[in-house]
Amino acid sequence: MSYFDDPDIFKAAVIVVGNEILSGRTKDANISWIAEKMNLCGVVLTEVRIVPDIEACIVEAVNALRPQVDYVFTTGGIGPTHDDITAASVTKALGLELEYNARALAALLDHYGEAELTDARKKMAQMPVGAVLIPNPVSGAPGFAIENVYVMAGVPRIMQAMLDHIIREHLEEGKKVLSNTIACDLPESEVAASLDALQQRYTEVDIGSYPHFRSGKLGLSLVLRGVDDAALKVATEAVVDMVRECGGTPQALGLEVLIDNF
Amino acid sequence: MSYFDDPDIFKAAVIVVGNEILSGRTKDANISWIAEKMNLCGVVLTEVRIVPDIEACIVEAVNALRPQVDYVFTTGGIGPTHDDITAASVTKALGLELEYNARALAALLDHYGEAELTDARKKMAQMPVGAVLIPNPVSGAPGFAIENVYVMAGVPRIMQAMLDHIIREHLEEGKKVLSNTIACDLPESEVAASLDALQQRYTEVDIGSYPHFRSGKLGLSLVLRGVDDAALKVATEAVVDMVRECGGTPQALGLEVLIDNF
Repeated sequence: MSYFDDPDIFKAAVIVVGNEILSGRTKDANISWIAEKMNLCGVVLTEVRIVPDIEACIVEAVNALRPQVDYVFTTGGIGPTHDDITAASVTKALGLELEYNARALAALLDHYGEAELTDARKKMAQMPVGAVLIPNPVSGAPGFAIENVYVMAGVPRIMQAMLDHIIREHLEEGKKVLSNTIACDLPESEVAASLDALQQRYTEVDIGSYPHFRSGKLGLSLVLRGVDDAALKVATEAVVDMVRECGGTPQALGLEVLIDNF
Repeated sequence: MSYFDDPDIFKAAVIVVGNEILSGRTKDANISWIAEKMNLCGVVLTEVRIVPDIEACIVEAVNALRPQVDYVFTTGGIGPTHDDITAASVTKALGLELEYNARALAALLDHYGEAELTDARKKMAQMPVGAVLIPNPVSGAPGFAIENVYVMAGVPRIMQAMLDHIIREHLEEGKKVLSNTIACDLPESEVAASLDALQQRYTEVDIGSYPHFRSGKLGLSLVLRGVDDAALKVATEAVVDMVRECGGTPQALGLEVLIDNF
C-alpha cells in the first residue's frame, strides 16, 4: 500500500497565491521549503496549486483541497494593498464573517504604534471570526489559522518563521515517511524491468526513479519511500543488489535532499 | 478589465507530475522557466498544479484544467520506469486509446539502435492515438501533443528543448501582456491607499504590490500589467508620481524579472 493511502499519515496541500509567480516575475522559494519541512514532520504533501490573485480562484482551490487533507497552507496576499485578498477569500471559502481581529490589531499597534497604524495597516488585521494568530516576527502583520487552513505571508523569510510556529503550535506529528536514495550511473531504461519487478514485490514501499544531469553527466536516483523501517531496509537492499546485477555502481545517499543543477 | 478576463489572451496551465517535488527531494526548476517563456509569448499562465505520480490525481488535474485554458503543459513521468505514468494517465483523461506510436518507435530505434531497443524503452513510445510527437534532442524519448495537452519530460534540460519546439510549432502568439515595474524604498502600507485609488482609476491595468528583502533591506516593487501600451504608460506615470508624493524614490525596472534572494 502506498504511503499516500495510509490513514495514519497526515496530509497537507499548499496554495500559492501569486500573480507574480505565474507571470514568471518571481521564482517561488516557498514550495520546496514547505515540502522539506513537511517531510521532516511526517506530513505528506499531496498537492500544490499556484493560483492568481483572484478571489474566485482562491476560494475554489481552498474548497477543493480542504476536505482532502489535514492541513492546507496558503502563502501570499496578506499585505495591506488592494491585491492582498487571501484573508477575505479564505473567509469566503469557509462561509465565515470577516472581522478586525482584536489580537491582530494589538500586534499591529505594538509594531507600528498608534500614530503609524493607518487604515491600510489595519486592513492586515481583517480575519475570519475565530481565527487564531500566527505571529510575524519580521514585519508585524500576522498570519492566521482557521479550521484546517493556515494563512501565511509570501515573503520567504516571513513564511519560514510562520511555518516554524505552525509546526510547533499546531501540527500533529504523524507516522514518518522514511526514504532511502540509491544513486547510480545506469540509464533509467536499463533498470526499468527489474525495478518494476521489485516494486511489485515490495508493495509497502514506493519506489521512484529519477534521472538527472549533474556536472554534465546523466545519472539516476532510485528513491524508496515508506513508513515501515524494516520493509524499507529489505527493499533498499534488493534495489542495491539489482543495480549491481545490472552492472551499475550503487551509491547510498540516504536521506540527503538532492537538487538538480544545470 | 483584468487581462485574465481578456478573451484575446491565450491562457495556459501547468501540471507538474512529481512525487519528488512534493517530497522536497527535488526543487522544481520548470515552473518559473515555463512562466517566463509564456510571458514572452503573450500567453498568460493561469494555474499550476503539482500532483503525485498517481493516475487518478493526474486525470483529475488534466480534466479540471483542460476546459479552462488554451494550453495544458505537463512535465515529468514520461520515462521508461513503472512510476512513469503520465502518457497513460493523459490518455485516460481524454478517453482515448493508448498505442505504440510508430513515429515515437522510429525515434527510439534511431536513438538506441535495434539491439538496445528493449521493451522498457519501447514503453516510452506508448501514446494516445492521434498524438503528435515533441522531439527530445537530449535522450531520445519524445513528448507529445494531444488536443490541447502538451506532455513534456521533467528533466529541465529536456523540458526546455521540448517547450522551445512547442512554442515554435504549436503555440499561437496572443495579445502580449506588457508590464512595468517600479521599485521603491517605501513600506507597502504607506502606498496602499493611494495605490488602491490608482487601481480603481486605471481598471485596464492590473497593479500588483510586492514587498521584498534584498541585501537585507525591505523594499517594494509595484508591477503594472496590461495589454494596452498607452493605458499602461499613463498608469505607470501615475504610480511614479504617487511614489514621489509618498516621499519615495521611484526606480523604473521595466520588464526586468526580479528574483527575491535571501
